[in-house]
This record gives sequence, structure tokens and C-alpha cells, in this order.
Amino acid sequence: MTIEELGDAVPHDEEIAFADLDPAEQLRRQRHSAAHVLAEAVLELFPDAKYAIGPPIENGFYYDFDLPRTLTPDDLVTLEARMRETIERDVPIEGKWIPKAEAEAIFKDQPYKLELIAELEGDLVGHFRHASFDDLCRGGHTERTGQLGAFKLSHVAGAYWRGDEHRPMLQRVYGLLFPTQQALDAYIEAREEAERRDHRRLGRDLDLFSTHEEYGPGLVYWHPKGGRVRVEIENAWRQEHYDAGYEIVFTPHIGRATLWETSGHLGFYAENMYSPMDIDGNDYYLKPMNCPFHILIYKNSLRSYRELPMRLAELGTVYRYERSGVLHGMMRVRGFTQDDAHIICTPEQVEDEIFEVVEFVLHLLRLFGFDEFEASLSTRPEKSVGDREQWDQAEDSLRRALDRANLSYNVDEGGGAFYGPKIDINLKDTLGRRWQCSTVQFDFNEPERFGMTYIGEDGAEHRPYMVHRALLGSIERFFGILVEHYGGAFPLWLAPVQAVVIPIADRHVDYAHHVQRELREAGLRVEVDNSGERMGNKIRRAQLQKTPYMLVIGDREVEAEQVSVRDRSGDDLGAMPLFQLADRMVDERDTRTYQPPV
Amino acid sequence: MTIEELGDAVPHDEEIAFADLDPAEQLRRQRHSAAHVLAEAVLELFPDAKYAIGPPIENGFYYDFDLPRTLTPDDLVTLEARMRETIERDVPIEGKWIPKAEAEAIFKDQPYKLELIAELEGDLVGHFRHASFDDLCRGGHTERTGQLGAFKLSHVAGAYWRGDEHRPMLQRVYGLLFPTQQALDAYIEAREEAERRDHRRLGRDLDLFSTHEEYGPGLVYWHPKGGRVRVEIENAWRQEHYDAGYEIVFTPHIGRATLWETSGHLGFYAENMYSPMDIDGNDYYLKPMNCPFHILIYKNSLRSYRELPMRLAELGTVYRYERSGVLHGMMRVRGFTQDDAHIICTPEQVEDEIFEVVEFVLHLLRLFGFDEFEASLSTRPEKSVGDREQWDQAEDSLRRALDRANLSYNVDEGGGAFYGPKIDINLKDTLGRRWQCSTVQFDFNEPERFGMTYIGEDGAEHRPYMVHRALLGSIERFFGILVEHYGGAFPLWLAPVQAVVIPIADRHVDYAHHVQRELREAGLRVEVDNSGERMGNKIRRAQLQKTPYMLVIGDREVEAEQVSVRDRSGDDLGAMPLFQLADRMVDERDTRTYQPPV
Repeated sequence: MTIEELGDAVPHDEEIAFADLDPAEQLRRQRHSAAHVLAEAVLELFPDAKYAIGPPIENGFYYDFDLPRTLTPDDLVTLEARMRETIERDVPIEGKWIPKAEAEAIFKDQPYKLELIAELEGDLVGHFRHASFDDLCRGGHTERTGQLGAFKLSHVAGAYWRGDEHRPMLQRVYGLLFPTQQALDAYIEAREEAERRDHRRLGRDLDLFSTHEEYGPGLVYWHPKGGRVRVEIENAWRQEHYDAGYEIVFTPHIGRATLWETSGHLGFYAENMYSPMDIDGNDYYLKPMNCPFHILIYKNSLRSYRELPMRLAELGTVYRYERSGVLHGMMRVRGFTQDDAHIICTPEQVEDEIFEVVEFVLHLLRLFGFDEFEASLSTRPEKSVGDREQWDQAEDSLRRALDRANLSYNVDEGGGAFYGPKIDINLKDTLGRRWQCSTVQFDFNEPERFGMTYIGEDGAEHRPYMVHRALLGSIERFFGILVEHYGGAFPLWLAPVQAVVIPIADRHVDYAHHVQRELREAGLRVEVDNSGERMGNKIRRAQLQKTPYMLVIGDREVEAEQVSVRDRSGDDLGAMPLFQLADRMVDERDTRTYQPPV
Repeated sequence: MTIEELGDAVPHDEEIAFADLDPAEQLRRQRHSAAHVLAEAVLELFPDAKYAIGPPIENGFYYDFDLPRTLTPDDLVTLEARMRETIERDVPIEGKWIPKAEAEAIFKDQPYKLELIAELEGDLVGHFRHASFDDLCRGGHTERTGQLGAFKLSHVAGAYWRGDEHRPMLQRVYGLLFPTQQALDAYIEAREEAERRDHRRLGRDLDLFSTHEEYGPGLVYWHPKGGRVRVEIENAWRQEHYDAGYEIVFTPHIGRATLWETSGHLGFYAENMYSPMDIDGNDYYLKPMNCPFHILIYKNSLRSYRELPMRLAELGTVYRYERSGVLHGMMRVRGFTQDDAHIICTPEQVEDEIFEVVEFVLHLLRLFGFDEFEASLSTRPEKSVGDREQWDQAEDSLRRALDRANLSYNVDEGGGAFYGPKIDINLKDTLGRRWQCSTVQFDFNEPERFGMTYIGEDGAEHRPYMVHRALLGSIERFFGILVEHYGGAFPLWLAPVQAVVIPIADRHVDYAHHVQRELREAGLRVEVDNSGERMGNKIRRAQLQKTPYMLVIGDREVEAEQVSVRDRSGDDLGAMPLFQLADRMVDERDTRTYQPPV
């Protein structure tokens, strides 16, 4: 925490009327003032409270306190009520610069404020006051407490004073604040929806995957149901890649130090690699990348221009070091499967290849139900390998591919890796969040280091271009995104279980199994719930599991050789003969149709 | 080398007439006598030769010599001719026990023989003689040199005296010997066929895979064509496993030391594991086994008997230490993908589960074209965990499953692992060789160590049974076997390229691509050879690549909208419309028909 976080305006800057400020600055000031109003309320409730700092933040504000006891949810209700009173009273908020000595007198019982005053440069400090509440503050406030907008105290969390674990642990009270009640409600609803869709929560509730801290954090165990989705993702990925002219290879997970020295990773990528293992006196490293292995396959024969472009693809599991603090479910892990490919081609082929990759990214992401994308292009940094002409050609081809594909993009000038320019493509999920999954990255470094060549039409040796590309990025992370995008209610083709047959009574179990067998014959994934529970519970359970179809079997269905079909929204689709349901489901699967539950 | 290898009969045992011996003993004696006849011929050619030992071996015999120069292939021809003269002369082979002193006199110029005499216990040593050739020998010979059968000197290799690298390097001359010329020819033909089918050779010729010593021996790189076959193998494997009620999971390749301590592998399996990596101060090991990970998935929830049997399957890549000297292509490697599964079930379910696994093994291996199997059952060793009753039940269930499946098997009493009994199932390939691929192995150790439980129908906690099973064994090794079994001429469904379209002239290239597109639409893997070479060369190349179909396109075919079809045996199947060929190929693929090339 620094004094900067107290706000960057100074008292005499507040000459512009609040109403004339731009909306973003208005909102920032509302959030900042709300923090003051919160501190005032806390001091009223706990006269001995020591208060620390309280800045505006994204979506709201917080204030840190040293209190005689831990705050309860009831306290938040009380504090909110007191805050509303202050807002109601609509008192002015006034600030000025005062001498440090005066400030020290005002805050004589407030050790955190005294510590801040002591550290501030200059003789004057900012002082703000509303009603009887004083704060040390550089300003950035509304004019009155009646201008605060719509707020809600959300929760309390522990926070070390100045973020230092050797200093006291304070209670940080968080509030949300938006210009209108409607905006606040919308934000809360979106946040709750995001929580309901959290892939870690759904991963547990739908039994999709687990991680096991004690045996290694950041390592994912795919359970049968998650595995089912992954198999479908991988099957689709393989088929699409074969259709797009890629060839699939498999390479080892470890390689001798010599390989990583040749590739250069032991130089520029070492901090992401694990420590070596010893085999017969040689160091071996777990692979953080697949590229050196693909290059060895390329180099295994003398190559001719006739063989290019060569597109080597692999679902290659790599391991990279991440600090345990940043690990997050499936989104950020230590071991993950890249949907990696390396395109090796002649300079003449580069432009078409890049365009095809970009089109292929969009095609593949659309299959999985995404349809909004944007991109960014990262160009030549100051330090780079490869000659200028290559970079220009590469950047041009990336730019033209984005243009031809009609993708909007921003340019990160000089933001490319030292070995080549790249484009990243972001997708937008149902909640409007952007995820960067796909990367198309030139590499002028490894072809040189490995001495990759091909014999051209002229009979001479040439250096090929090489492009790394991952479309889904990491299967783990992409799966996490899918889970949140669909809230666990996967489209039929991805759903781990596509239908549950629910016999009403024991005498319907045989027919239920008959239905299961028939649908399985059509390649559908169907379970029978013969748990002996009531039908209502069975239906509820299937709905909680987001199973696309529930097939209820009673006397009538057995007699008529039909099934009564409900979907996961609870809609009753009526009774139908089995073949009709099978046709419907097979069609829904094969067309990858998505029927969102409501 | 010990004196044992000189033969275990002694002179006075040779009272039974050669003609009355059983054929195996006859053959052993023929091979042994041939070694003597070989040594005689060498001594004639090199009077200063020092000769060491010459035992019968599988398929023939050898003799080790210390010679003034390296033998050439021409020498072998000369030696063979001299041997035939001795055989022609049909001289008697006579043996007796003689005092060591007498032997030392006979072999006074033969240091290797003198060394052996000095080491022999007792006062007498065996002495054999035919014509003017003397050998130190415990016997086991034909009566005369005319009884030797059909032989051929095959090759020369270096061999240290007594296998000790600090002793002199000798020249070992190998011979093949069979009772008849026909049997000898058949053996040579089979050996040449095995060499032609060697998966390392075909792996190179058909561009299926490579290994890269300098970056780590025993690590396999699957090239696009090998990868294509692997994808087909894995697709079939996954589908069959889902159909058989298995669930597919994915687990990490590394685990913390705590995991391997709990499982016990750091105790009894450490020598097969690589040295640990350090992550955040903890030791992590590359996995040599998948089981602990599957157990963690099982233990992730409280389990009920209703969820059992649970069959967790994974194509899990494991890494195990093998000495570099024993590594062999894809057959013996350091990193391989097990088609692993763990069946976790109640005691009542064990017998059916085991029977189903055995049936499933045979079903799966038959899909890949194998139809002869035999098994072995390994039972409780002296040191074991788990109680006697469990072992008995487990062994009974294995035995009954083998009986029900009508599999012949031998019993290796006491040959089981300490943690449970097992069955291994061998398949027989086209060359009649047996390969052990499948294992079904009980484990009474890990469920105990991990405290695996389920809640029974009685509401109490019980310990489940756990069975490890791998059907193909290792995908790498199984692929190697497939390559040799088919000599690289895979059945259509596995063939990396299923047809090559061969345009006769440039003007046929467009139609060739049209044919390719149409067949690809049917999901067939079709290439166009537009290399500009002559048709004959193109056909030859496709045949060398063992491509099932060659589709020749000339004026007539373009005009009639047909293709002229040849198969890889060179048979001309005539011209046919495209749809007819597509139907034929799709049918051949979907029924997994195998048309062996002739």
C-alpha cells in the first residue's frame, strides 16, 4: 500500500463541479467517498477502531480497519444502514491541505494514519472531512454524501497492513458501487452467475475433475465424466485437423539436456522448466514445449519443397512451472495438453498458410459454440533474431490474414517475442468475458538453431519458415472455459451423459434397460437411474447434472413402447416412440446443435 | 562360459544307439558334433589356430577361435566345403575319459583348453576325437560324422573368452543345423522373412517412427504415418472400452514423492523409476505406473456398492528405466503408453469381472488380426500380502475365467507378484512367434495402503478388490508387433494411406484430385502421386509403401469417369466407377477385413 492509493487528486483540484466530470471520474469519486462514509460508520460502531486506508477499486471500494472483534454479516447490515443515513443527510465533503503537525494532532489516536503522515514528503498533507469524520486523503471525492449512487457492502476479508505479512492483519470491508441500482443489480447478478458457473464448483458438482494438493498442486485428474468430454473434444480436434491437412504425431515427454540446449530453451525458458532428472549420467528435462520434438521429426529425412507445407500437430502434454499462488482450477495449471502444431513451409507459402490457420481457428472455435472474436498482433521488439525482411513478410501475412478474415484487432507494436511476430485470438463467452486461447506465432530462432533446411525447386538448400500455433490453447483451460460458458449444460455432442432413463417403479426397470440398449446402439450415451428413489428426485438429480434428456418410463410408456421425454429446462416434450427420440438426438449430436436450458 | 556348456553327457553315457535317441537329443548331438567338425576345418585352414569352446545352441552351433586374421565370408564357404568332406568321409567320433596329464599333453599348444583342464574337478577329463581332431569335451555326440543333418555356416561375431571383456576377443563362427535340408531352408526363409518384417527396418522404410539416441535413447517419435496407425488403434481401443463399460480418465505424468511413498513404489519399484525433480522444495517423480492416480480418482468421493464395478481406463504414458543395452526399437523402450485400466469391485463381482476381462482381451486382439492365444497363471509366492482366502478366491476366478474362455494355459506355481496372482495372455503372430501383451493382475497391496473403501449394502465400510489390466500392453510394443505381423502391409482400416491415385500424365492430375476429394468425402485416406515420375515407378513406390490400393488414371479413366484399380499384390482389379470403389473400401474398412498381399 502506498499513499498513491489514497487518491491522486489534491484538494484544490476539485474545482470542477461533480456534475461536469466525465462518468468514469464521477464513479471513481463516488466509490472513494463511499469508502469514507463506510469508515465513518465503522467509527460510530466501534469508537476505538483504528482505520488504515480506503481506496476506490474496480466495481466499488474497500476500507481496512483494526477492530476489537471480527465483523459479522449482521455488522455489515448495520453499517450499510448507518451509511444510508449519512447519504440521506447529504452533508458536504470538504478537503484542504493542512500542515503535518495539525494532521498529527487530528489523528493522534490513529497509528496507521500517523505512520502514513510520517512517510509523506513535504510539509502539507491532504485532509478531508464530512460531518464529524476526518480522513487523511489526497482527494478525489463527490461534493456531498448524497451523490454516492447505489452501493452494497459485499464481504470482509483479512489484509495485512501495507500488504506485509509481518505487520498487523486488518479487516478489509468491501463494497460494490455503481451509478444506479439497476447497474448494481446487474453486476451482482452477473457475479452470482459467474460463481454458479465457476468451473471449479461445477467440476465438483458434476464430478468432472479434481486436483490433489498433497500429491502435487496444478496437476489435473480428469474423472470419467470430464474425460468423456475431453475424448469428444479430442476426437473433433483430430478429425478437423486431418481434414485441414495436418498430420498427427506423438512425441516423448522428456528430452536430454542436449535437445534443450540446441533449441535454446535452457537459456531463455529455464525458469519455467523443472529441475532435471538423471538417466545414465545425463540430464533429462520434462518438456515445456513440443517444438524441438517436431523439428527432429522434420529433420529425420532430407526434405524437398514438394513435401511442404508440412503441418505437424500433436495433443502434447507439457509441464511448466507456475507459482502455486497463481494456480487456478483448470485455468492455470502446471501440466496441460497443448493442441500444438508446427507449420513448416516455404516463404511463398507463408501467406496462404497463415490465412488458412486464422480461418481454421474461427472454424474450430465456432464448433464449440463461440462466435465472437477479436485479435491482437504483436510486432518486432527491439531485440530480435531473424532478418528484417522476414519479419516484415511475417507481419504482413499476419495482418493480411486478419483483414481477410474480417477480424478486428489491435496492434501491440514491439510486443512480439524475440523470435517472431504473432497474433493472439480472443473468444468472448456467454458472460461477455474474453479469453485468449489461440496463438499463431512465427519462429525465426529454432529453424536456425536446428539447421532446418529443404531442397528447393532450384536444387539448393533453403531455410523453411516455421509457425507455432495452438488453437484451443490448452485442453485443460479450454475445458474450463467451456464449462463456464455452458454453465455445465454442455451441448448434446459434448454432454458426458446424453439421457437418463427414469423408471417410475421397479416393474419398469427392464424396459428402461431396453431403452438404454436401443439408444446405445445409436451411439448415444444413456444411463438408467434405478436408485430406488422417487421419480421427482430422479428428475431433479438429472437436472442438477445438466443431463440433456430425461426419459420417464411408466406403465403407459411400457405399453405403448414409447418414452416420455423432458429436457433439462424441465420442458415436457411428450411421449414419443424410441426411434423418433433416437433420430432427434442423433441429429442434435451430429449437427452439434446447442439447446440452451432456460 | 562354463564347462557345463561343453555338454552334459559323459563318454560312457553314449551307449544308446544314435538312432534310438529321441529327436531332440539327436538334434542336440548333431549340432554338437558339427561344432567339432567346424573346429577341425578351421584347424586345417589355420594350423596355428587356438580353439576355445563350441557348444550346440538353439538352431545350430558355434565355435570360438583365436585366429591370426579376421575371417571373411569367403572363408566360411571354404570351411563349409571342408566340413562337407568330413561328413562325406563319415568317420567315427569316439570319446573316453582320460587322465588330466594326458589331456595336457594333447592340448599342450592350446592355452584355452589348458585353462579349462586346470579348472576341472577330479582326475579325469572327457576327450573326443574324430579323424585327427581332438577336443576336450564331456560328450553328447553322434556316432559318426555322416550323421550330421543339414547345416550352413551363417556368420561370424566377436565374443570375449569366457564372456569377460578383460580377456581376449575371439571370433565366434555360427552355424545353423536342422535334421533335413527342408527344415534348414524353412528356418532360413523364416529368419529372412523376420528380418524383412523387422519393425525397425519397416519403421524406417515406411516412415513410421524414429528414435534419437543423442536426445535420449528408448524414446519414440511417432511420425505422421505411424501416428495415423496409432490414432486408429487408440480410436478403436476407446470405442471398445466404452462399449465394454469402461470409463476413460486422464491423469498427470508426475506425482509428488508422497504419492509414491503411499503406493509403496518408492520401496519395491524404485530401481525402475527416474531420479526426482524438485518443485517448490518437493520431490516429484515421473510416473512408472498409472494406478496411484486412478486410486485417487476413486477416493475422491465416498463410494457405494451401487457404483461398483468401477472400471477406470487410461491410455497412460509411463516412463521406466531400462538399461540402454536392452532397448530395442519400439519393442523395449523407456517411455510407453499403457492401455491401462483398474477394475474396482466387490468380492461378489470378481469372478464375472475377470471372465469379462479375459473375453475382452481375446475380442480386442482378434480385432487386430490375431487368433491364436495361450495363457499362463501365476500363483501365490512365499512372501505375499493379503489373506489366504482372498488369494484363493482370486486364483480360482482367474482359473475359471481361463477355463470358461477355453484358453490353454500353464501354471507358474508361486510365480505371482507379492501383491496378487495374475494371468498373462500371449498372442501368436504370422511367423509363429509368441508375444506376451495382456496381463490381468490382482492387487491386494494398494487398496490397503491407500485405504480404499466402499459402503456396502449393509451400510458398513468394505475394502474393494482391485485388478490391474492392460490388454495391448504398451501401444508402442503392440504397434511393433503389428508392423511385424503384417510386414507393414496393414489391413485397410489401419493403413496410414489407403489408396494412392496415380495420374499417368499431367493432363490427368485434375481428375486425380477429383478422385481424391471424392474418396476423402467417404472418410478414406487417399494421396495423389503427382511426382512427375513414370507410372511404373509410381506403382512400384506405392507397392513398397504397402499401400492397399493404387488407382491409375489415364485418358480412358477420365473419359469413363472411372478408376483402374490395382491392389498391393499387383493384382489388376480392373476399371470401376468411383462409387463402387468407395463402397468396397468403406466396407473393407468398417468390417476390418484383411486382404493379405501375396
